[in-house]
Amino acid sequence: MAKEPSDVMDLEDRDPNKLNQHLQVSWEDVIGEPASIRSPECAWSVSNQCFKLSKNFCYVCLSVVCAPVTAFCLGITFACLSFEQIWCRTPTLRVWKISCASIRNFVAVFAHAIIIPCTSACGYFWSEIKVKTHAISGDVDEKKDDVLLV
Amino acid sequence: MAKEPSDVMDLEDRDPNKLNQHLQVSWEDVIGEPASIRSPECAWSVSNQCFKLSKNFCYVCLSVVCAPVTAFCLGITFACLSFEQIWCRTPTLRVWKISCASIRNFVAVFAHAIIIPCTSACGYFWSEIKVKTHAISGDVDEKKDDVLLV
Amino acid sequence: MAKEPSDVMDLEDRDPNKLNQHLQVSWEDVIGEPASIRSPECAWSVSNQCFKLSKNFCYVCLSVVCAPVTAFCLGITFACLSFEQIWCRTPTLRVWKISCASIRNFVAVFAHAIIIPCTSACGYFWSEIKVKTHAISGDVDEKKDDVLLV
Repeated sequence: MAKEPSDVMDLEDRDPNKLNQHLQVSWEDVIGEPASIRSPECAWSVSNQCFKLSKNFCYVCLSVVCAPVTAFCLGITFACLSFEQIWCRTPTLRVWKISCASIRNFVAVFAHAIIIPCTSACGYFWSEIKVKTHAISGDVDEKKDDVLLV
Repeated sequence: MAKEPSDVMDLEDRDPNKLNQHLQVSWEDVIGEPASIRSPECAWSVSNQCFKLSKNFCYVCLSVVCAPVTAFCLGITFACLSFEQIWCRTPTLRVWKISCASIRNFVAVFAHAIIIPCTSACGYFWSEIKVKTHAISGDVDEKKDDVLLV
Repeated sequence: MAKEPSDVMDLEDRDPNKLNQHLQVSWEDVIGEPASIRSPECAWSVSNQCFKLSKNFCYVCLSVVCAPVTAFCLGITFACLSFEQIWCRTPTLRVWKISCASIRNFVAVFAHAIIIPCTSACGYFWSEIKVKTHAISGDVDEKKDDVLLV
């Protein structure tokens, strides 16, 4: 039973994996009046009720009408995707890995024979770079004399 | 009840999430006379009252007339947005993640087989760079001789 | 009462938020005679009085006649601006944030699948850079012989 985590359905916590945490659509997340300007309490309360009722009613209607159909289509989609991944994509990846492993050997041999000698020789272009460090103890900001004043 | 934070409505703090902190429209935020120039007190007070009354009256009218309708439309908007995000966008993201996970395997295998041997070999171009640190104790700024002076 | 800071009006400090600190229009900010050149005291005093009287009279007239009307219009402007910000702009920003949050997920998945493997592999181009520290105790600058001198 522990392997099928959705056998016992949790009706309270419906987003255990935090998929839609960015979906912040409560009244406090959308509308806020700062302290310097205020609408009357009646308008504020009525607007709050309008927002909540329309949002909840509309979402309930949508979820009742469309959610089962959507979930049905999603189920089919994920079944096909799973089949394609398990039976086609992963075996193809194994073929690809085996092919590339042998190709890498060819490329590595080629690189050691042709590329590395050339680039190593060209690398002597940088061989004379020297970095000398010198700690300066005196002042750095010399005040510029104001040439307009004597 | 604790899950619906707006059940008990706070009529005082109407912007708990600091959505509109930039909206500074009080008299002190808009008008200020410096110490060096002053209008008479009557003009200052009357202007202050005009500002406050017109601002509050206009905002109250707007919020009473338009706010509930706006809130109603916002509710519908956010309901549709939530439905779209929860039932379409997030499942699509899951499909996208699964597809990209397998694509990444193909790309990584390709990179290890073809790209890395070549770039590693080309990297020998930099192999002769040596940084030698040398502490110089004397002066660094040698003064250039002024060729105009003997 | 404490939330409405302008209930008790301060007739002395009329710019608590330092909005117009740059407006330095007193006599001392505009006119100044250095020590090396002086006008007669009568001309200096009369000019000072002319400046102050004309400045104050003109500003008082303007503020008595125009300030209340201007304040009235400003109040309406800020009320409309506040309504637009609170009820339209901020909710639209929330919709924009939610949409972009999900788009970011798609883009990040794409980057991890396609871009990062390629750029990581290309990064091996720099893999041969080595910093060797070596303390040199002698002189470094060997003077090149001047081939033009024997």
